[in-house]
Amino acid sequence: MKKFVNDPKQFVPEMLKGIALANPTTLKYVPEYNLIMRADIPKDNKVSIMQGSGSGHEPAHVMIVGRGMLDAACPGDVFSAPAADYVYNTSKLVASKKGVLHLINNYTGDKMSFDMGKEMAEADGIEIKIVVVNDDVAVKDSTWTVGRRGVAGNFFVIKAVGAAAEKGASLDDLVKLGERVVAVTRTMGMALTGCTPPAKGTPIFTLAEDEMEMGIGIHGEPGRKRVKMAKANAIVDELLEAVASDLPYKSGDDVALMINGMGGTPISELYLLYGYAHEQVTKRGMKIKRNYVGEYCTSLEMAGFSLTLVKLDPELEGLLAAPAEIAIRTF
Amino acid sequence: MKKFVNDPKQFVPEMLKGIALANPTTLKYVPEYNLIMRADIPKDNKVSIMQGSGSGHEPAHVMIVGRGMLDAACPGDVFSAPAADYVYNTSKLVASKKGVLHLINNYTGDKMSFDMGKEMAEADGIEIKIVVVNDDVAVKDSTWTVGRRGVAGNFFVIKAVGAAAEKGASLDDLVKLGERVVAVTRTMGMALTGCTPPAKGTPIFTLAEDEMEMGIGIHGEPGRKRVKMAKANAIVDELLEAVASDLPYKSGDDVALMINGMGGTPISELYLLYGYAHEQVTKRGMKIKRNYVGEYCTSLEMAGFSLTLVKLDPELEGLLAAPAEIAIRTF
Repeated sequence: MKKFVNDPKQFVPEMLKGIALANPTTLKYVPEYNLIMRADIPKDNKVSIMQGSGSGHEPAHVMIVGRGMLDAACPGDVFSAPAADYVYNTSKLVASKKGVLHLINNYTGDKMSFDMGKEMAEADGIEIKIVVVNDDVAVKDSTWTVGRRGVAGNFFVIKAVGAAAEKGASLDDLVKLGERVVAVTRTMGMALTGCTPPAKGTPIFTLAEDEMEMGIGIHGEPGRKRVKMAKANAIVDELLEAVASDLPYKSGDDVALMINGMGGTPISELYLLYGYAHEQVTKRGMKIKRNYVGEYCTSLEMAGFSLTLVKLDPELEGLLAAPAEIAIRTF
Repeated sequence: MKKFVNDPKQFVPEMLKGIALANPTTLKYVPEYNLIMRADIPKDNKVSIMQGSGSGHEPAHVMIVGRGMLDAACPGDVFSAPAADYVYNTSKLVASKKGVLHLINNYTGDKMSFDMGKEMAEADGIEIKIVVVNDDVAVKDSTWTVGRRGVAGNFFVIKAVGAAAEKGASLDDLVKLGERVVAVTRTMGMALTGCTPPAKGTPIFTLAEDEMEMGIGIHGEPGRKRVKMAKANAIVDELLEAVASDLPYKSGDDVALMINGMGGTPISELYLLYGYAHEQVTKRGMKIKRNYVGEYCTSLEMAGFSLTLVKLDPELEGLLAAPAEIAIRTF
């Protein structure tokens, strides 16, 4: 296993410790509940927003905790849902007079943990509402999901509700906004290689040297088809057609376009993909008002990418442009 | 070859086009000379700063063009120095009344191109001075270098002189500052895997499943030794000892600490490495005033990382903290 690991069981805690040490004034690591939270959550004036999911998708979600984004993230082990008890205790730690918003990517395990954690927290008098993200157009049901999976489009939901919460939006407003973002966001991904969870020590799946998987899930779940490698532009064409025809996105739409790396694809290739995707989206008559190129929701060291479109209105565009602070910085 | 490529010959131009399309108001792509430059270089008030090197190290250097950083970057093909003619023409395009600073990572090919390009530009009356970066402690001479190689520490030189240039520093001041940063910056890297330049189509070197290379160069040049895989902390210990003992960095020093990913290592692992490195640097009595975790100078999709220390003084710390804008954004 070619990974930087000490003890596979400590992979996630050691990563969380590193995040906290790199952000000593803004973030707190709470080892008891395996969580990262803002050091200064303005609990009285703002709905608190939290998300948990399996680890291995970084920066989602433990590295996008901060002002204008998540107030806390409670990850599970790699590709495993967080324990319900951690969801409960995270909810207690961030509990606000204005309520708590649970963002959940649509996986059965995550939903189960959050359902139980929510019930336990509600018994303590904490008001909680949920928004479920399911932006992946690749497959209807999947190995770990009933209905569509939640993948990189999740970022836009967090960014929008995070910005609105900072401006004082109510819990009900945030649920409406979150659902509105989910309704206009679509993603599809693909992989060139598998990836190796530290505790497993071997790849979760393998692809031959001339193969790729279209519509891959972020835990290596099967996508639409396994096919021969193609040129970069042909891959973009296929993902874009699947995504654009789903909502559908139409000529005249203002959109955000994201090319999200899966973890092992260098940023040079992501910008090459972005350049062609930008041209094709523009050719379809859409206006790209915001763009995102980099890693937002990964699968460990998997080589691959996903393409996301978000249909924008002026309010949503403003929320995506609002200032925010997160754990990872470029300089 | 598991890469997103159309035509290997167009890999770099297609990437540059993507960078420009993603940054339409701040950056310009000039296809004739294969360069990325700021759209609004304040030529009359500021020394212009440029760097060129082989491609394949992104974000260095084409993605760190922007206010407070580079004014232009003229890359060569993957792992190839830029043509002297491109260095010349880039120098002409950014030419400022206050002069032009050439930053060069210490590789024989890059130095040769910049020497020639500088001479050609000087014949046109452009004033040019150079700073050579050579932060890699791994080996004295190497496959492509006489003397030490320039690697990820390069970022700190760009950030510091970029900030000082925005404040109006003269060309002579910037040379002094750049050399001062080089003098206090040390790096060493290592690799778990090789990488594949698009035009070559096969890995530039391979490592067995249980092997790693300590002191690797950013073009896969041999390092100090090829050894059995070790645990993450042991690898950090070895790199830190090599780096810290070189200057040496001493108890009581204020430092910046960088964990730089080589391209194929997920950010989860980089933060795990950072956490332990932070503890060990602190245990040595140094105070970490600034930290950097992510990709700064990569080798395509190589799995691996480098560790950099910079000894800070209050002026340098302020320059590193100054605002800047670059092509790649997190949100």
